[in-house]
Amino acid sequence: MTMDLEQLHLQFPAIAAKSYFNFGGQGPLSQKSLNAIISSYDKVQVQGPFSIAVNDWAQDVMAATKQAIATEIGAQPRNIVLTENVTIGCNIALWGIEWQEGDEVLVGDCEHPGVIGTLQELVHRFGIKINFCPIFDTLNEGNPTEVIAQHLTPKTRCLVISHLLWNTGQVLPIKDICELCHKQDVQVMVDAAQSVGSLALNLEDIGGDFYAFTGHKWCCGPAGVGGLYVSEAAMPTLRPTFIGWRGVKIWPSPFDVKLKNDGNQYEVATSAYPLQAGLTEAIKLHQSYGTAEERYAKICEMSAYAWERLGSIDAVSCLKNTPPKSGLVSFTVDSPIGHKKLVEILEEKGFCLRTLTYPDCIRACTHYFTSHAEIDQLIIAIKALL
Amino acid sequence: MTMDLEQLHLQFPAIAAKSYFNFGGQGPLSQKSLNAIISSYDKVQVQGPFSIAVNDWAQDVMAATKQAIATEIGAQPRNIVLTENVTIGCNIALWGIEWQEGDEVLVGDCEHPGVIGTLQELVHRFGIKINFCPIFDTLNEGNPTEVIAQHLTPKTRCLVISHLLWNTGQVLPIKDICELCHKQDVQVMVDAAQSVGSLALNLEDIGGDFYAFTGHKWCCGPAGVGGLYVSEAAMPTLRPTFIGWRGVKIWPSPFDVKLKNDGNQYEVATSAYPLQAGLTEAIKLHQSYGTAEERYAKICEMSAYAWERLGSIDAVSCLKNTPPKSGLVSFTVDSPIGHKKLVEILEEKGFCLRTLTYPDCIRACTHYFTSHAEIDQLIIAIKALL
Repeated sequence: MTMDLEQLHLQFPAIAAKSYFNFGGQGPLSQKSLNAIISSYDKVQVQGPFSIAVNDWAQDVMAATKQAIATEIGAQPRNIVLTENVTIGCNIALWGIEWQEGDEVLVGDCEHPGVIGTLQELVHRFGIKINFCPIFDTLNEGNPTEVIAQHLTPKTRCLVISHLLWNTGQVLPIKDICELCHKQDVQVMVDAAQSVGSLALNLEDIGGDFYAFTGHKWCCGPAGVGGLYVSEAAMPTLRPTFIGWRGVKIWPSPFDVKLKNDGNQYEVATSAYPLQAGLTEAIKLHQSYGTAEERYAKICEMSAYAWERLGSIDAVSCLKNTPPKSGLVSFTVDSPIGHKKLVEILEEKGFCLRTLTYPDCIRACTHYFTSHAEIDQLIIAIKALL
Repeated sequence: MTMDLEQLHLQFPAIAAKSYFNFGGQGPLSQKSLNAIISSYDKVQVQGPFSIAVNDWAQDVMAATKQAIATEIGAQPRNIVLTENVTIGCNIALWGIEWQEGDEVLVGDCEHPGVIGTLQELVHRFGIKINFCPIFDTLNEGNPTEVIAQHLTPKTRCLVISHLLWNTGQVLPIKDICELCHKQDVQVMVDAAQSVGSLALNLEDIGGDFYAFTGHKWCCGPAGVGGLYVSEAAMPTLRPTFIGWRGVKIWPSPFDVKLKNDGNQYEVATSAYPLQAGLTEAIKLHQSYGTAEERYAKICEMSAYAWERLGSIDAVSCLKNTPPKSGLVSFTVDSPIGHKKLVEILEEKGFCLRTLTYPDCIRACTHYFTSHAEIDQLIIAIKALL
């Protein structure tokens, strides 16, 4: 570790004057990232905005962003698709499967509503069937892999599952799950909204087919840049859906185009490239602090502390019986104030948390640079309101 | 007109030190737009980045952006879908049609390769058939509406056509074309990449079903924000394809979602909202100069001047026989230097133009704030190289 946490804390204007626990919603943007964005805008205007020079620069920015992401998640740049957010990555994967009527998709019961909406539309368009499996109940006991195994059928073509559940903070044994599914010729679409930038990842080892993520949560990049990893084995099976010039390799006539062979084939058209430079800078900042393993250990150290301190409040119950294996600490409060009002008042007092609907709870997230003092102050603030 | 052109010119850092003719590729970003973007980033960090306050602000920003766009294009905000770029708007429209095997799509021969790629994929997925019609040949004589009429068949479900052709600069009689198509129950998907921000538009009068555009070309907004207009009549027919939380209205259980009824249903998830604030500011700046009609008249005045001056060079031939009705002036150069090299050298000398492939030509664009002096200097620079 080359940078200490106090130094690091100062890099983020968002957390200078408040106590921030919404990393699972959006991570703070460092001044370095914002500077990279602004200087990119300046460069684009000085050299373009549309010019040979800027078009070359945009290619370099995209390549550098894929390279930076690749080092964080244990993948090759050619397997990475740059997207606007995690949900678009999920959509690229789910719409790219050539569904046949009667095919089934298996989905965990803790998946995000956006993904459920996409699956409902696939039911309408292609006549597939959605099966849900009860992952929520395995938070404190039970084996999620076994639950999934029990719910696979001969018609299941794809499992849709989060690596790290956004509501309960549970980390699923995704490698085991992928092995199980692949044995039965089922592809795995992983919603990685909460895992990229928080867990220490090696995607080539995990073996998922599609792994959709975003840069604006745990990676602390700007909103508007995310990605999708498509494994080498899965790529030939995945059709592109939304198509544009970024996916085009050759354009032999005005009536015909040929698409690229790598992740680019799933990319569409003009994006805000300066934001990609901001994400690359964000990843560099994390790496200047320590390895992904070191950061993950620190995230868990801080969430364990938050979990223990929250659990010490009489009216508070954490969903998990044991310290989280992630930076997400979800809890309920037994008090007339209610979850919504509590979070509103806490925000007014400078503490950012959020409520969730399923289950009805409050979520506090800790990053590796969250301090004990911030958690202590949160506990005092919550106690004062109950 | 409340702002004169010299004042306006100074608002754009990109055009301070060079002569810019690539508005059809990307418009320059004004300092006011960039300031709006930067101050939005600051606000998001001070109040969030993920908080009740910032989530409310993002809703306001999206609403204000749709309102600003609506005033420019003659539409209601509820019919506008915010997208990342024009191509995504085209994809939303083309994938949202419930294609049946054997359906036909009619496409102009000057459409963008990204759109052709999407149609090719629809051929693969749904067994539709693409028919092309020769619009290019109507640049100087002939009637595009008649050409389209000759190519419609009883199986045609949709026409895909640009309002303003990106290669030749031809403006198509889009209202006539929509009337023709609607009489035969054919929907019209308009690629408006070049028309929004340059032509004076009233979409409700034009009558197109789907009108996909971008904010980063003639509107001079930042890259990364565009939109799709879906007419009130067409909206009930258009399925959403990529789906996410921004399209979700109710989430009655973890297993079910209900989508919104307006343009939001086609929007997906987290975007770079500060960029939307930049586009809104860009539209305000144009409106402070004059009405859309006044700006369009000035665009044509400047392109006529460029067309006439270019035509006065022996080795240069403009594609159009008469002054353009748009800001796009495409021309060929009969010289050993070739189009590519000529554009490269011009860029080194501070003149931004671009080459096109079909037809093989160079394109120079004029905006309403392009000056006679810039065009004069371009002519001198081109002459010196031939």
